[in-house]
Amino acid sequence: MRIHLINPNTTSGMTETIRNAGVTIAAADTRITASQPISGPVSIEGHFDEAISAVGVLDEILRLDQETDQPDAYVLACFGDPGLLAAREATRAPVIGIAEAAFHMATLISTRFSVVTTLGRTVIIAEHLLDQYGFRHHCRRVRAAEIPVLDLEDDSDRALEKIIEEGIRARDEDGIGAIVLGCGGMANLTDTISREVGLPVVEGVTAAVKLAEALVGLKLATSKVGDLAFPRPKPFTGHYAHLSDLDLNRRNS
Amino acid sequence: MRIHLINPNTTSGMTETIRNAGVTIAAADTRITASQPISGPVSIEGHFDEAISAVGVLDEILRLDQETDQPDAYVLACFGDPGLLAAREATRAPVIGIAEAAFHMATLISTRFSVVTTLGRTVIIAEHLLDQYGFRHHCRRVRAAEIPVLDLEDDSDRALEKIIEEGIRARDEDGIGAIVLGCGGMANLTDTISREVGLPVVEGVTAAVKLAEALVGLKLATSKVGDLAFPRPKPFTGHYAHLSDLDLNRRNS
Amino acid sequence: MRIHLINPNTTSGMTETIRNAGVTIAAADTRITASQPISGPVSIEGHFDEAISAVGVLDEILRLDQETDQPDAYVLACFGDPGLLAAREATRAPVIGIAEAAFHMATLISTRFSVVTTLGRTVIIAEHLLDQYGFRHHCRRVRAAEIPVLDLEDDSDRALEKIIEEGIRARDEDGIGAIVLGCGGMANLTDTISREVGLPVVEGVTAAVKLAEALVGLKLATSKVGDLAFPRPKPFTGHYAHLSDLDLNRRNS
Amino acid sequence: MRIHLINPNTTSGMTETIRNAGVTIAAADTRITASQPISGPVSIEGHFDEAISAVGVLDEILRLDQETDQPDAYVLACFGDPGLLAAREATRAPVIGIAEAAFHMATLISTRFSVVTTLGRTVIIAEHLLDQYGFRHHCRRVRAAEIPVLDLEDDSDRALEKIIEEGIRARDEDGIGAIVLGCGGMANLTDTISREVGLPVVEGVTAAVKLAEALVGLKLATSKVGDLAFPRPKPFTGHYAHLSDLDLNRRNS
Amino acid sequence: MRIHLINPNTTSGMTETIRNAGVTIAAADTRITASQPISGPVSIEGHFDEAISAVGVLDEILRLDQETDQPDAYVLACFGDPGLLAAREATRAPVIGIAEAAFHMATLISTRFSVVTTLGRTVIIAEHLLDQYGFRHHCRRVRAAEIPVLDLEDDSDRALEKIIEEGIRARDEDGIGAIVLGCGGMANLTDTISREVGLPVVEGVTAAVKLAEALVGLKLATSKVGDLAFPRPKPFTGHYAHLSDLDLNRRNS
Amino acid sequence: MRIHLINPNTTSGMTETIRNAGVTIAAADTRITASQPISGPVSIEGHFDEAISAVGVLDEILRLDQETDQPDAYVLACFGDPGLLAAREATRAPVIGIAEAAFHMATLISTRFSVVTTLGRTVIIAEHLLDQYGFRHHCRRVRAAEIPVLDLEDDSDRALEKIIEEGIRARDEDGIGAIVLGCGGMANLTDTISREVGLPVVEGVTAAVKLAEALVGLKLATSKVGDLAFPRPKPFTGHYAHLSDLDLNRRNS
Repeated sequence: MRIHLINPNTTSGMTETIRNAGVTIAAADTRITASQPISGPVSIEGHFDEAISAVGVLDEILRLDQETDQPDAYVLACFGDPGLLAAREATRAPVIGIAEAAFHMATLISTRFSVVTTLGRTVIIAEHLLDQYGFRHHCRRVRAAEIPVLDLEDDSDRALEKIIEEGIRARDEDGIGAIVLGCGGMANLTDTISREVGLPVVEGVTAAVKLAEALVGLKLATSKVGDLAFPRPKPFTGHYAHLSDLDLNRRNS
Repeated sequence: MRIHLINPNTTSGMTETIRNAGVTIAAADTRITASQPISGPVSIEGHFDEAISAVGVLDEILRLDQETDQPDAYVLACFGDPGLLAAREATRAPVIGIAEAAFHMATLISTRFSVVTTLGRTVIIAEHLLDQYGFRHHCRRVRAAEIPVLDLEDDSDRALEKIIEEGIRARDEDGIGAIVLGCGGMANLTDTISREVGLPVVEGVTAAVKLAEALVGLKLATSKVGDLAFPRPKPFTGHYAHLSDLDLNRRNS
Repeated sequence: MRIHLINPNTTSGMTETIRNAGVTIAAADTRITASQPISGPVSIEGHFDEAISAVGVLDEILRLDQETDQPDAYVLACFGDPGLLAAREATRAPVIGIAEAAFHMATLISTRFSVVTTLGRTVIIAEHLLDQYGFRHHCRRVRAAEIPVLDLEDDSDRALEKIIEEGIRARDEDGIGAIVLGCGGMANLTDTISREVGLPVVEGVTAAVKLAEALVGLKLATSKVGDLAFPRPKPFTGHYAHLSDLDLNRRNS
Repeated sequence: MRIHLINPNTTSGMTETIRNAGVTIAAADTRITASQPISGPVSIEGHFDEAISAVGVLDEILRLDQETDQPDAYVLACFGDPGLLAAREATRAPVIGIAEAAFHMATLISTRFSVVTTLGRTVIIAEHLLDQYGFRHHCRRVRAAEIPVLDLEDDSDRALEKIIEEGIRARDEDGIGAIVLGCGGMANLTDTISREVGLPVVEGVTAAVKLAEALVGLKLATSKVGDLAFPRPKPFTGHYAHLSDLDLNRRNS
Repeated sequence: MRIHLINPNTTSGMTETIRNAGVTIAAADTRITASQPISGPVSIEGHFDEAISAVGVLDEILRLDQETDQPDAYVLACFGDPGLLAAREATRAPVIGIAEAAFHMATLISTRFSVVTTLGRTVIIAEHLLDQYGFRHHCRRVRAAEIPVLDLEDDSDRALEKIIEEGIRARDEDGIGAIVLGCGGMANLTDTISREVGLPVVEGVTAAVKLAEALVGLKLATSKVGDLAFPRPKPFTGHYAHLSDLDLNRRNS
Repeated sequence: MRIHLINPNTTSGMTETIRNAGVTIAAADTRITASQPISGPVSIEGHFDEAISAVGVLDEILRLDQETDQPDAYVLACFGDPGLLAAREATRAPVIGIAEAAFHMATLISTRFSVVTTLGRTVIIAEHLLDQYGFRHHCRRVRAAEIPVLDLEDDSDRALEKIIEEGIRARDEDGIGAIVLGCGGMANLTDTISREVGLPVVEGVTAAVKLAEALVGLKLATSKVGDLAFPRPKPFTGHYAHLSDLDLNRRNS
């Protein structure tokens, strides 16, 4: 089984963090690969960055789906799950976002959780996802540690400290049983944060890898009946001319 | 006052339909301009098309915001409101999606409405927007006339007929007071449909133009405090390298 | 185009504040008129005052709809939108409440807002409206500055000060992008509050005037199909005998 | 114990129907009285009728609360619960609407119910109440038998027949355990409908009388802390001048 | 009329508290009886205790329903309403949970209430019930006084003090009109708490008794159409073999 | 890794069906064991059966958790997830219900699904779970094939036929991308149904096994902070005396 992790931003160091998290957690017979788009923002810290990165995600999926050993499942390793439904249209393979993965898992081990994410301006993104996925009431609060995403790479000790501080506030004030980490770049911090905060900590990259393994094991693929069917073939212009008349239905049959 | 209509798909005929609808409805002192992205799909009929088109929308806004007589407001003239929040981050000017515009207006003249859109696979997009905007319970049903978007251009008589048929079913079965048209390409059909169905019909392009005029008149611009603040400047790679270190905060001050 | 503003309370000074706000914001070719009911409370600060004022609102609409240059739209200039649906039954013209107007506009320029209203006992009225209109989750919190409505007239400096203080608390604690002013009597304070608080401020009277202009421009009138159809003619007794066998359907045809 | 039933419309025949229903159901030591407002519509079939009737309801409560043997509780015997919160402000006695009473009782004997009301245009009123009271999801469907309210008086056999037909459709199509009757004028039909439809039938007047007895027995009165406190005394003008400076707090102490 | 109160835990002292509350509040012609299961936990402080106690509740109902003067209604006197829907399946008599009873009554005298319960770990139980019953938004907050249930028996002065303290915090911070007591063991404390806190206090045992009287008076019994019909007869094994082929439909006909 | 499947009913044939489904789907290094309670109903077809079976589930968990090679995770293999939260209190191991498992998985491969369950009277159970888990709006409809649970064993051809018929109706009428099977006894029918209906079919037992593997792989256990902490030790009486002073906290440390 091959699971491919797409880091939707273009920072290769973060791709490595994510790949390592995936490799560590994967089953013995799961092969983890990882990549980032060629084009896009170095970090995703708002709706604008998300919109750009979604196209990079789609490019990666279309490219990888043509490899001879095409992935059996994809993980979108950014907590906003950018382009998730579009990605599901583009491939028959299951596609899991790390935000959804973490939310799902958190509801299985606790009745209420809080999220600790990076910047305050991304809180709304997590709130919108909680609404869309149905977990609004399972989440007591989305909290921001107020650290820029790349500080997870560049100033990791200080970043860790601030996440732990916010996690402790969540534990003491929110009446929760678990914490969800709100950034793919935190994938290597799970154990430390859990130990320091004293609560189970659900991290999305690892959660998504295991959910992807589960779906593949179940032989459940993205439904190609209805709104997640392959995109209708049609002309595209300009930069996207290569997508013209892309008949994924035929290509994947 | 200048309001710029962005047709998120790349079919210039549809841009003309939209422009004409805007020109017809605009106040005497409002100048309507319209454009479509250089790059993108010729029609938007699913999540995948939407994700691609969102980038084209952002490109247009960034380009137009640098014109000397930059628009006072933008309208996104595709019923999925692709890239709406990202667009709001990118500019200080108000940005109105035609789905949200139509929904807002419909709730002001009726207690319950139904949507008539193009293809069944886009129903979910309208449902997600109704949820996000808060109008789930004001909408009785999202109905599809099962016409491809470009049939509105290429087979317009048959398309009109099917929309009217679906509108009549909505009137007779849904217990509604108004109908919302679910595609920017229907902007020229409003009067006919309303007359044939016998219900008020709310069309998004025209609704959005008037909402944009209203916001500009109120001197209300997109809030730059919080999650709609200009994107944080940062490197972008590849195709999007031109977005690197884009300090919209400074550029717009 | 004529838009008539109904101040649902009977304080003529407040009618003037509202008229001035309307005149200032209206388009060049919009004529603003304003009135208050002959009968009713001098201020509206609870469910009881609202119920009484709703009848005054209806009286005004029935009276004005018989003028030869009958209004093209009505604005109900009290933040509880008293009698809104009844008013929509009574006339073909669009009727806009200032609470709904402000909520709609606030969602177009921010993802989350808070309301600053007058007395704590009216908070529930705003909350019920947020629920009914669908904006519960767009509003972080309804806050009261704890000023009686008429203090906006009689002790305006102190009232302004308290509103600004509450607005600053909202800005600092609520994670919002905009503030909605929760009383028609605050219509002249918008600019000052926005400047002092440092957030966009949405005020209902002005918002409603622009929405009314928008609907009239769109030729969208209250749907007369379904539950907003003209009231069924029937006998009324006592004070309301003049409403007996009122066939608005015929009168307006 | 005295429970006073207010028929919010001015048709005395319906007041008698309601009174009889109340007398029949009341406990041995409960005295039932009933009245209708002097002023108002002869039937309530929409938002407009409701708004007018709400004032009549308040007049009755203010009048009755000054009697030496003032009622221990009030029942508002119209299915739209017109003026309910205003009525609660106006008195310390519990006030129960028949719609809320029926909804509450129906949830205690079934997991899902449907409503059978009079005219289609009043469906929205019931839906709004279900939302406000929290019972949206307990109600499968609000159905209209399409009978004008006064036909319950004037053409009662035909009206009964249509209600039973609609009730049978509800039983067969909705997956429900009980039916709620959606009009105070149906108070004498409960047993017949239940027998013919073969489901428990919850009728609001009788339900409200028993809830009122329950609250009085519990010594629970309308909370005078917060938004249901007595209205703030203030001047009223015109027809309502008699309400000026009404200090209910003092009058009731 | 006989109403039987089932204390779902096995502490007879608490059964006495509950019986006394019931006797005090019951109408003159209502006979109150009370019992506790033979088997089960001495207090209910979590999901585990609840699951065990539910079976004891069912045993009691099956036993009592065979008495010659079988109860006309049952009250489940634990704030988690353990086994409520199962109990409704098991008998034709109405079954009222004290949590639902208290919530229903609180919404009739206030627009917003808070709950004061025993231990923090039971907060989630009350929240789940508020969701299921539809009262999520009528309740501002579920608060725990952090007292073990049996302290209400064994250390009652200290327990009362802590409940009052929490009630005062609710009054001052939550913007509420009433308080709901979140444990059947508080049934004797209502008056004191109400007096000390200065708010109406709704207690579930008493509320449920009056609701039960109301339903019996209305001749409304649990619907035997649909999902609350008597359980399908079938074999049971082991401890529950006595339930085998129990045809309650026949036994109760 | 050992995952133990608890069939909450006492029909050993169904336990075998479930075990086989688990064994077939489990990873190579996962050991599947299965059992049913000694005491309880032979099938679970309503709230009553559920309440009884929950205790059997808890007995099994307490028993198995004392084995030397105690299970790493539990699956509750009845679609009502009976006793789920109580079970989570009772053990540190993850506990997965098959309804929640199926719902979670279905949302990962489709935007909308329908459920096909056994008897109409169990529809409400699935609806309540959808509400509690947050998936109400992801599920278009819960449908019953109207087959008693044990017909899956005893009349399996006819049962399969009816499930397929209902699945085809769901596919044609509901606008869905996937079907969820609503009974643990259908675990061996997944492939046939999917092939005949032409939609992905999510079955709970298999889904739960894979989710359990995922959680164990993630080292995520039920949170013992908050409301899922081990039950407070206390006396139990009668049949449950063996639970007295059960200090699971100590036993599991």
